[in-house]
Amino acid sequence: YEPTVLVHGGAGDVSDAAIPNKKLGVKLAARKGFEILRYTGSVLDAVEAAVNSLEADPNFNAGYGSVLNWDGEVEMDAAIMNGADLSAGCVSLARDIINPISLARRIMESTKHRYIAGPGAMRIAEQEGFNLLPPGALITEAAIKALQDYKNSLNATQTQKGVVYGSPGTVGAVAIDACGNVAAATSTGGLTGKLPGRIGDSPILGGGTYADNESGAVSATGHGETIMRYNVVARMLALVEHGNYTAQEAAVQVLEQMTQRFNETAGIIAVDYRGQLGIYFTSNRMSWAYQRGNQVHFGVDAGEDEIEFGEPRTTDN
Amino acid sequence: YEPTVLVHGGAGDVSDAAIPNKKLGVKLAARKGFEILRYTGSVLDAVEAAVNSLEADPNFNAGYGSVLNWDGEVEMDAAIMNGADLSAGCVSLARDIINPISLARRIMESTKHRYIAGPGAMRIAEQEGFNLLPPGALITEAAIKALQDYKNSLNATQTQKGVVYGSPGTVGAVAIDACGNVAAATSTGGLTGKLPGRIGDSPILGGGTYADNESGAVSATGHGETIMRYNVVARMLALVEHGNYTAQEAAVQVLEQMTQRFNETAGIIAVDYRGQLGIYFTSNRMSWAYQRGNQVHFGVDAGEDEIEFGEPRTTDN
Repeated sequence: YEPTVLVHGGAGDVSDAAIPNKKLGVKLAARKGFEILRYTGSVLDAVEAAVNSLEADPNFNAGYGSVLNWDGEVEMDAAIMNGADLSAGCVSLARDIINPISLARRIMESTKHRYIAGPGAMRIAEQEGFNLLPPGALITEAAIKALQDYKNSLNATQTQKGVVYGSPGTVGAVAIDACGNVAAATSTGGLTGKLPGRIGDSPILGGGTYADNESGAVSATGHGETIMRYNVVARMLALVEHGNYTAQEAAVQVLEQMTQRFNETAGIIAVDYRGQLGIYFTSNRMSWAYQRGNQVHFGVDAGEDEIEFGEPRTTDN
Repeated sequence: YEPTVLVHGGAGDVSDAAIPNKKLGVKLAARKGFEILRYTGSVLDAVEAAVNSLEADPNFNAGYGSVLNWDGEVEMDAAIMNGADLSAGCVSLARDIINPISLARRIMESTKHRYIAGPGAMRIAEQEGFNLLPPGALITEAAIKALQDYKNSLNATQTQKGVVYGSPGTVGAVAIDACGNVAAATSTGGLTGKLPGRIGDSPILGGGTYADNESGAVSATGHGETIMRYNVVARMLALVEHGNYTAQEAAVQVLEQMTQRFNETAGIIAVDYRGQLGIYFTSNRMSWAYQRGNQVHFGVDAGEDEIEFGEPRTTDN
């Protein structure tokens, strides 16, 4: 297997103006994840580091820069999973921490539970020494404006309604090492204007995130409610496991079927147990990037595959 | 298809003394669900009614009689799903209502979200006119004693540790109508002594609950953390859909593999798209019952299949 770290920065209506920052962010995250994979050899460390990079980047809807719920607050979901032993950690309704994916990992490693939400999750964060930020610290001007625009759109004429609804920018990563070990991670602020307490697909194992060395690792993004009910990641891996599909073929089939049936869109990044990558979306755009060897591939539009060469970033530069 | 309502009352170490009440409870729930199926014709109504019956019964770990978390409080999970259109509703960290499954259904029908947890979920309950009980109203003497026993066991010698851990009594139902429409529902108080905020497999679509007319309807019970990470219900339905397994064959294979790999046990009830039932558990016991025509089948021990004949219960008796 060729060690690879593949990330996404969310599926949806990415504006032309947003593209440069999105591309920079996913490339940086893929490089950081790949660097960690080379140094620690751990796919779990790699996907965590890649997602941490995107959580700290205000251009993505995760950690700092998360969108706001109806009450103007940030409530975040995340999940991380290790394909070698199916260990996993999930968190929902996380607040005031910049790296929910690291809290998900701590839930996995420090508790006997796999999924903790709300104040109980923040209690773990406190016990585990997470930096608890003051309320509002994760909120950006862009997030405030997006909520305002969303609320205004509800009073607008029917044709304008929902135009700004949807919040591209969920982030995720999958990785594979030379031995075929895979891992997956997804982190999100959810949907602008969501009801408080709403949980999307990202923290749902088999919904938005899953990893199993015997089939592959997947992170999904898009309309969370639809991804959850269609069980997108589980359906995709079932095609790989039982139908002998490649990651790419399975991603195409599941997303096309979902979009046809429910008229909602989504995107997937995946690496299957053979080491083959899958990158597909039925939304207008999805930012993604991966590093394999000394190549970084990336894109935002359908069919786009840009390549940057050169040495992988090291800790020295 | 032969209309059928199949329920379970939880997998685990059911004591001999508890068996009579468990059998009564699951039989009553199967009859109630079947009666509703006959009168309204809706599999969704049927699984909701069957689970409501078990939620109101203190002999099961759902609604009234739910087990307590580490802080001595009840936090409940539930999910309901309709196989015809994959509509679904999920709730976590529900408090002070006797019927979390009905709140899950209301989340499905009254919001644009599929999963809401914590105070946000209770806000929906209030808006939808649920009867909000005073704090502690769902707590039984048995639940208090179970938490005390659990805490005591943590101070006991190694060999005694964990003896009372685990809380059989999660409840669930699946149903099929004459046209092949299926539905599934699961409701639980979780694990005795769980950390506050802990979420198990029950509300996770593809984890503990799923329904799709094209494959079948399933409700799982047992060690939630393991069921979630192994994605038990999604794996089982993949065997039905891609491997041409019956519900029973698929339940056996998935649960045997899970128990072998993780040394934790679980149980499944299922009806597949052909109308065939699956009832299987790797735990010591699981209470279950179903009504089909004028027969009610039920059991608790492996291989047990008792039958009661006679007219289905009607609203008059």
